Amino acid sequence: MQRLARFVPVLDWGRRYDRNALSNDLIAALIVTIMLIPQSLAYALLAGLPPEAGIYASIVPILLYSIFGTSRALAVGPVAVVSLMTAMAIGQVAEQGTAGYAVAALTLALLSGGFLLLLGIFRLGILANFLSHPVIAGFITASGILIATSQLGHILGIRAGGFTLVEMVEALVVQLGSINPVTLVIGVLATGFLFWVRKGLKPLLRRIGVGPRLADIATKAGPVAAVVVTTLAAWGLGLADRGVAIVGEVPQSLPPFTMPGLTMDLISELVLPAVLISIIGFMESVSVAQTLAAKKRQRINPDQELIGLGAANLGAAFTGGYPVTGGFARSVVNFDAGAETPAAGAYTAVGLAVASLALTPLVYFLPKATLAATIIVAVLSLVDFSILKKTWRYSRADFAAVAATIVLTLGAGVEVGVAAGVLLSVALHLSKTARPHVAEVGLVPGTQHFRNIKRYTVETDPKVLTLRVDESLYFVNVRFLEDLVQDRVTEGSGIRDVILMFSAVNEVDFSAVETLEAVNHRLKDLGVGLHLSEVKGPVMDRLKTAHFLQDLNGRVFLSQYDAWTALTGPSPFKAAG
Amino acid sequence: MQRLARFVPVLDWGRRYDRNALSNDLIAALIVTIMLIPQSLAYALLAGLPPEAGIYASIVPILLYSIFGTSRALAVGPVAVVSLMTAMAIGQVAEQGTAGYAVAALTLALLSGGFLLLLGIFRLGILANFLSHPVIAGFITASGILIATSQLGHILGIRAGGFTLVEMVEALVVQLGSINPVTLVIGVLATGFLFWVRKGLKPLLRRIGVGPRLADIATKAGPVAAVVVTTLAAWGLGLADRGVAIVGEVPQSLPPFTMPGLTMDLISELVLPAVLISIIGFMESVSVAQTLAAKKRQRINPDQELIGLGAANLGAAFTGGYPVTGGFARSVVNFDAGAETPAAGAYTAVGLAVASLALTPLVYFLPKATLAATIIVAVLSLVDFSILKKTWRYSRADFAAVAATIVLTLGAGVEVGVAAGVLLSVALHLSKTARPHVAEVGLVPGTQHFRNIKRYTVETDPKVLTLRVDESLYFVNVRFLEDLVQDRVTEGSGIRDVILMFSAVNEVDFSAVETLEAVNHRLKDLGVGLHLSEVKGPVMDRLKTAHFLQDLNGRVFLSQYDAWTALTGPSPFKAAG
Repeated sequence: MQRLARFVPVLDWGRRYDRNALSNDLIAALIVTIMLIPQSLAYALLAGLPPEAGIYASIVPILLYSIFGTSRALAVGPVAVVSLMTAMAIGQVAEQGTAGYAVAALTLALLSGGFLLLLGIFRLGILANFLSHPVIAGFITASGILIATSQLGHILGIRAGGFTLVEMVEALVVQLGSINPVTLVIGVLATGFLFWVRKGLKPLLRRIGVGPRLADIATKAGPVAAVVVTTLAAWGLGLADRGVAIVGEVPQSLPPFTMPGLTMDLISELVLPAVLISIIGFMESVSVAQTLAAKKRQRINPDQELIGLGAANLGAAFTGGYPVTGGFARSVVNFDAGAETPAAGAYTAVGLAVASLALTPLVYFLPKATLAATIIVAVLSLVDFSILKKTWRYSRADFAAVAATIVLTLGAGVEVGVAAGVLLSVALHLSKTARPHVAEVGLVPGTQHFRNIKRYTVETDPKVLTLRVDESLYFVNVRFLEDLVQDRVTEGSGIRDVILMFSAVNEVDFSAVETLEAVNHRLKDLGVGLHLSEVKGPVMDRLKTAHFLQDLNGRVFLSQYDAWTALTGPSPFKAAG
Repeated sequence: MQRLARFVPVLDWGRRYDRNALSNDLIAALIVTIMLIPQSLAYALLAGLPPEAGIYASIVPILLYSIFGTSRALAVGPVAVVSLMTAMAIGQVAEQGTAGYAVAALTLALLSGGFLLLLGIFRLGILANFLSHPVIAGFITASGILIATSQLGHILGIRAGGFTLVEMVEALVVQLGSINPVTLVIGVLATGFLFWVRKGLKPLLRRIGVGPRLADIATKAGPVAAVVVTTLAAWGLGLADRGVAIVGEVPQSLPPFTMPGLTMDLISELVLPAVLISIIGFMESVSVAQTLAAKKRQRINPDQELIGLGAANLGAAFTGGYPVTGGFARSVVNFDAGAETPAAGAYTAVGLAVASLALTPLVYFLPKATLAATIIVAVLSLVDFSILKKTWRYSRADFAAVAATIVLTLGAGVEVGVAAGVLLSVALHLSKTARPHVAEVGLVPGTQHFRNIKRYTVETDPKVLTLRVDESLYFVNVRFLEDLVQDRVTEGSGIRDVILMFSAVNEVDFSAVETLEAVNHRLKDLGVGLHLSEVKGPVMDRLKTAHFLQDLNGRVFLSQYDAWTALTGPSPFKAAG
């Protein structure tokens, strides 16, 4: 039971579920359901799928996550970035609006779910760490711009397309002549209203005495108001006859059982996008879940999160949905509305199921421009170029990774952008370790502590050269140390002993130990001793398995101070560094 | 002049050249020339090129290296591994024996020379460090096996081919019926003789009183004896008429001016092999040059070596050669024979030029089986599986890189093998840093030194948790530290202060500093202080540019001992760790 509960968290929290939690969860679910109806429709539009796909993608996945997931507030379903990535991936294998397109979306969800489950079973959540914060920030910002641009067509009443910013803008410019003015009016008014709700409504409500939490939730309900008003307008004024694109018929049905396409062709085309979608989705979800869990001093388990999200995506694949993950906005609303357990998610699923059975006729006249406006307002809040400034100030390497991610995501598409960001971050990190910082250190007077002679006034001895190696030694950088020691010993003719202070050497690989052996023999030939100090346990264990220590022409000292006193004598020669 | 001499080392050593150096260099050049004649012919055979290509590849390249190179003993020319890689690369774009094949070899030399020059000009010799010792050792061993197998066809008197071990063996087995028995007799006798020269001749010579240096050189002359005897036999007994493949006509000419092929097709097919050949050749050359330079307490300059080897390869491209590098056997002979300056190389070039004008008719009857025997005996000495045992004992990661390199080089060809070895080494290194070692440390009694509580008996204080972070903090591993601190603080309820001892933290990237900020805020909420100790200069500089230090809910201490005394009071609570 304990073991099983580890993989099925519901068995743990479900047993302690009480009436108080029930009522809190129900209230949260009601609020989230109302918010999710327009959002699900809008994200389906963004993914190029029929509106009901967005709702279906929120029902079974959210149920499965509530059984297997570990976050108490995370709300799973379609999200903006993943919807865009879905549109990009399946737009390359099928035409929007065809049956093949919807089937490819199911396949993508299946592959993504399978990959997440595999990672979870093999406890490889750590792989997601290869996406650095700056790369994610750059990617989200660039994606926000791409998403907003992709929705401009709906605001203007024209069909647009494209995978990169240039392609999208080109497609828009070509069709500028066929703008539908009524659609434009609805789109602009809805966008303006939603921006005002986001920026102006909350302060207004606070001024008239509404509590902060309620004001927050009212702000989040803005899209619902826009949906209601524009739907009524489209119905009352017969706007569909004047060329305004409306949602139209949405089947009144529970999520259907659907079968993803499983041809080798389709799978081989979608497997790489599925991997990227999984990792990006996982990162987004885990960061939301961790933020919310930390507020209540709870913990989430990233490996179990992989299993929860994997199950949710498999659920989406077989019930007419498309790839899903934990969404930021909906999870925050869920949390703020007081959700206590994953059961709130289950109740939301029930609410959406009821809505998809009973309320879908009500959205028949909903203009697509309104949905586009909700997307644009939502994603523009993700656009934040301050990461460029912050990373520039902090380090050029981090800046380069962000800039490359933004430029390539906009210019060559989401997949290239994020892949380039990851590869560049890794390459920059390796290049930093390739030329390690090595400091010559001396004794800080009156202490047993040693510091860089260039930064502190320290005691040194011309007969003893102490180099603090500030990097693990491995094949890429060990030749650098070899050259440095050789140069220093050749130029400083009075040197009798070299101490390598290993306090910052966390690993010594086989290439490095071979090179250290060569350095040792070369110094021995020159009559210079080679000593090590502050070698850490794991490194010492490793060195003992090589011949290096037996052949060492010197000693290994526990601390640098021991080495210093032994090699310089009790009264060291003193010189200001 | 000083500046120019940096890029053209001949200007430096040339001015100090004297009569003593001249006579030493001349003797060395004579010995090396005699050794190089059969070797050059053999390696051309291995590369699938006409025999004169091997001699041409030793003349102009060696001259250019003697002007631009920094090693005093390195002998540049065709070498076994690069010849094999050449055969593999151009075998994919042209048929052996055609004019296109020879032109492709020139193009390969041109691309390789250009790439080496570029690396040298941008001082990127460091890139070669990405090939670790174990990967090179594994690659050389696997290449030795491939080379020996590729020559078996010449010993058996049949035509063979293939890029992988399986393909080569298959090609041999299919034609076993058409073995030429006379060729087989010559091949087996020559191979046996050369093995005996290598293993048995030197001890014999030493026993009869020959000096060690002379005995060494006599051993190296073994191939010349085999060449003379088998050529005479083939001529006297008319073996060519009995189906023995002989070298045949070799033009009596100085190296001709040749033009590499420069079509886009050819270039795009050869650019990747050229990069690999350049890097492998550079690594081989630099390791030989460094070994020999160290024996005389000289230094070589790897970036200048790139320029020297680049010039040598460009020379090969325009004078009928193919890719060259510094060879191990010839350089050692050159060194042992007393070469003092790169001028010895120039005299060798003159010797080979005379040979190619005057001596080429003498090798008309030389059986190809003899050349194959010299190659097999030379490369089998490179085969050394002990690297597998050594790395297995040292670390599984290093072992995995060697094993993958050997298996993939044999099974999928030289290019796949070496590329996989590099990628796997990098991936394994990253995966080690992804889950860093973090030790809880305490004070070693009577010192100011702190060590792992699991390995040493140390003083600790339940109110103060000190974690020594044994890795640079960067995007891949910082979440690990975040989780660890959170877990430790949650489980140890009495903890009032957390000290992160940064003695081994060599870098903190932007993702890491953001995560540290999050840790700081979380600990602050829990009423726990966060302190840093032993932060290195470069890391401190970086942290100062972020907001982290301003918001830090604690202090930064110069040494861990300072932190300990400040946080535990002058009389710390004592407990055995």
